[in-house]
Amino acid sequence: MASCLIGRQLSLCVQKNLWLNSAGCRYVSKAAAKTQVEYDYDGPLMKTTVPGPRSQELTKQLGDIQNVGAVNFFCNYEDSRGNYLVDVDGNRMLDIYTQISSIPIGYNHPALLKLMTNPNNLSTFVNRPALGILPPENFPDKITESLLSIAPSGMTRVQTMACGSCANENAFKSIFIWYRNKERGHNTPSEEELTTCMTNQAPGCPDLSILSFMGGFHGRTLGCLATTHSKVIHKLDVPSFDWPVAPFPRLKYPLEEFSRENAQEEARCLEEVEDLIVKWRQKGKPVAGIIIEPIQAEGGDNHASPDFFRNLRNISRKHGCAFHVDEVQTGGGCTGKFWAHEHWGMDDPAEIVSFSKKLLTGGYYQKDELQADKPYRIFNTWMGDPSKNLFLVEVLNVIRRENLLEEVTRSGKALLNGLYELQAQYPGLLSRARGQGTFCAIDVRDAATRDRLLLQARDKGMLLGGCGDQSIRFRPALVFKEYHVHIFLNIFNDVLAQNK
Amino acid sequence: MASCLIGRQLSLCVQKNLWLNSAGCRYVSKAAAKTQVEYDYDGPLMKTTVPGPRSQELTKQLGDIQNVGAVNFFCNYEDSRGNYLVDVDGNRMLDIYTQISSIPIGYNHPALLKLMTNPNNLSTFVNRPALGILPPENFPDKITESLLSIAPSGMTRVQTMACGSCANENAFKSIFIWYRNKERGHNTPSEEELTTCMTNQAPGCPDLSILSFMGGFHGRTLGCLATTHSKVIHKLDVPSFDWPVAPFPRLKYPLEEFSRENAQEEARCLEEVEDLIVKWRQKGKPVAGIIIEPIQAEGGDNHASPDFFRNLRNISRKHGCAFHVDEVQTGGGCTGKFWAHEHWGMDDPAEIVSFSKKLLTGGYYQKDELQADKPYRIFNTWMGDPSKNLFLVEVLNVIRRENLLEEVTRSGKALLNGLYELQAQYPGLLSRARGQGTFCAIDVRDAATRDRLLLQARDKGMLLGGCGDQSIRFRPALVFKEYHVHIFLNIFNDVLAQNK
Repeated sequence: MASCLIGRQLSLCVQKNLWLNSAGCRYVSKAAAKTQVEYDYDGPLMKTTVPGPRSQELTKQLGDIQNVGAVNFFCNYEDSRGNYLVDVDGNRMLDIYTQISSIPIGYNHPALLKLMTNPNNLSTFVNRPALGILPPENFPDKITESLLSIAPSGMTRVQTMACGSCANENAFKSIFIWYRNKERGHNTPSEEELTTCMTNQAPGCPDLSILSFMGGFHGRTLGCLATTHSKVIHKLDVPSFDWPVAPFPRLKYPLEEFSRENAQEEARCLEEVEDLIVKWRQKGKPVAGIIIEPIQAEGGDNHASPDFFRNLRNISRKHGCAFHVDEVQTGGGCTGKFWAHEHWGMDDPAEIVSFSKKLLTGGYYQKDELQADKPYRIFNTWMGDPSKNLFLVEVLNVIRRENLLEEVTRSGKALLNGLYELQAQYPGLLSRARGQGTFCAIDVRDAATRDRLLLQARDKGMLLGGCGDQSIRFRPALVFKEYHVHIFLNIFNDVLAQNK
Repeated sequence: MASCLIGRQLSLCVQKNLWLNSAGCRYVSKAAAKTQVEYDYDGPLMKTTVPGPRSQELTKQLGDIQNVGAVNFFCNYEDSRGNYLVDVDGNRMLDIYTQISSIPIGYNHPALLKLMTNPNNLSTFVNRPALGILPPENFPDKITESLLSIAPSGMTRVQTMACGSCANENAFKSIFIWYRNKERGHNTPSEEELTTCMTNQAPGCPDLSILSFMGGFHGRTLGCLATTHSKVIHKLDVPSFDWPVAPFPRLKYPLEEFSRENAQEEARCLEEVEDLIVKWRQKGKPVAGIIIEPIQAEGGDNHASPDFFRNLRNISRKHGCAFHVDEVQTGGGCTGKFWAHEHWGMDDPAEIVSFSKKLLTGGYYQKDELQADKPYRIFNTWMGDPSKNLFLVEVLNVIRRENLLEEVTRSGKALLNGLYELQAQYPGLLSRARGQGTFCAIDVRDAATRDRLLLQARDKGMLLGGCGDQSIRFRPALVFKEYHVHIFLNIFNDVLAQNK
């Protein structure tokens, strides 16, 4: 087929680049042998610049219906496979962004297509239930096979929700309910509480708060948005809650050179957290919960040490605040463990762990005592979508069968080493390469250059995303192998060479 | 088949009831001839009390994972058909609640099953995109064929979201952004706004408010919940915004007897709305928008006259507030028109109309000027789910092909007449029968009796829901025919006779 031929030509071109840059390139490893997933393409294939003419036409059409300022291009999902996203102009791109990190095992995975052709599964798609009142027969089993089989340490309870924002909103509500019952010493509200809550007033609607971190992202609905502090565009003009915002450590790289400074920076942030908890209690707005991402994603891929998180967890215990770990972007295996917080090595990491994206359904795990004390307190019509649980069961089967967490660790190492190499090669352009598994990032000189690099990479068949002010984030699917890392590094090297 | 046989026996029993109660019963009409939809069952069929042993077993199993206090029973969705929901104990119930009003054309409709077997559709289910950045090729067409084809008057723009709460949350954000730009006179924020918004403070996060109504329900995430005032259990212990809450008219029935009192009641509420708008402006928390349901559903099926809504719309215009009509429960045809607000007869009914449930996807229509001025202001990873749009196209085809809005009007008339008859027959038990299309309700003497009636009806094969303090709400699918109305009325009559 023509496309394969061109694929091979591009592959030759890749090899040529490897050769050109071979001396000292750590990423030209023996393991780079081509071990593609079956249903994958063999390389990018570009026919037009992106967006091509058909994408532009469709963008114009959609522009009459919606704001299309964020649309990159239109996709041909039928023809997309594995790590490759195909657009409507026939361009085939190596996808290292995967729908904002939400495609776990690549496009059109055979296991998922097969699930769709099983007639026993049809009714799950066609009849979306009100899960909280009328669950389907297989719901407990499917939840057990899927979400419970990967439950974080210490958690046996899970609640699905339609998306990540709804997951966090409802997790907050669980936290508030738990906290108020703790304050009361019982779960019987006063007459005054019953009356005042109906008009949004205290004590029925208490002045409680959630502590969050500058640079954090936890969603965009009004409750979540009060804990999101990554970009102005998310927050401007929207009323919010007066909740405390702590600094998140800003680590210096390479970590091994700045261990003392980084430890001091983390200590400073932890001290500020405690100060804020005390201050907000004095203000009459006690901190009921602390929410944090294991790696701040949208805010710029900001990492902190396991020690930082362990100490933060202890602070939450000391002050009686629930600890809510938001794994919406980090969860699902991309750090090499199923949950990024597993890297902290704790038996009791949190009261709540929320998820969405790669898990295909939103939701949250919680410790027993966090479960709302009465029915209908945490409730809505759909409370998730059982058809997503069906897919998730298959996704987890594939992850286990194909040892994808090990693959991620391997690919992630190759990717990070390649990024180290590139930043050494282009010191004026790149810095602060960092990552865990394939959940990697690198900083670019400035925002304008970063944005230009992203577009140039895209025109060469590589789809990447930005985050923070000047970072590029890598969010490949779990089927992104070392082979793909090398395709990326070589093409990216070309792009960088143009921008020296 | 045994089930059909028993179905027929029950059908005979139904006819016997008809005969017993025939004198003066308006609901024994000639049109009651059996004109079932093809894929429907021919009547309820009960094998156990509900929940049966298998449901109880599964409830226990799920109880280790989630709060199951709201679970009614577990369902066999494979065997459910049309208006009949089958449970895991083999009980077949006439479903007049339809998953809290969210099943538009009954269970396992052949048109939807057919869609699932079309291989061209598979990739839409398997590859859920980040719609705001990488929409599928057919997205503009599918949105045009589905949501735009039924757009409310004056609206050409629509934004999908994952659920009803996310729809309202994002609609609120659109309102706030629009309102602030109007206040500024331009859309360039000050340095101070850019800085303060990052820590939730004014002026970047302004003290704007949304006016809502006592008894209203608009969702349960923190922004929505600040406008929800139907039940304590939704709101208790959750921090909220100090936003104004106006009284919703409490009409007296029958309407024709109380026209003067009801007009006065509506005038009183409208006056209060204007007072609150002035008061909140003086408080420094201007009302940016007014949100209202055309019929308050969760809050007890509270109706108001078209005049009330037209006057409220004028008040919103006068004070420069956006008018947001929440059609999450009323939309989709159940009132006999596609949108309940169409009964008001206005060319310019609102700035925003939100939907979910029967529309299968959440979202909202908006007037051009309400669309956010920049990309990424209204945004999240999924922004809906194109597989739901596929289903919606088919649902709308069925509604048109089978003239289901006319059917709803006809069935609704039969249902409401039947309810009038029953309340005349059981004056100590029932009152205030009301409705539009099949979106009907009736009040029961007290909450305990209402709850008992619901359970007794369920054990006789009829699934109904409660709302408000003491109402029963009727929320059948659009394929609920006059024939089904009569099955309901007869069985319900039996239940009432037991409770005289």
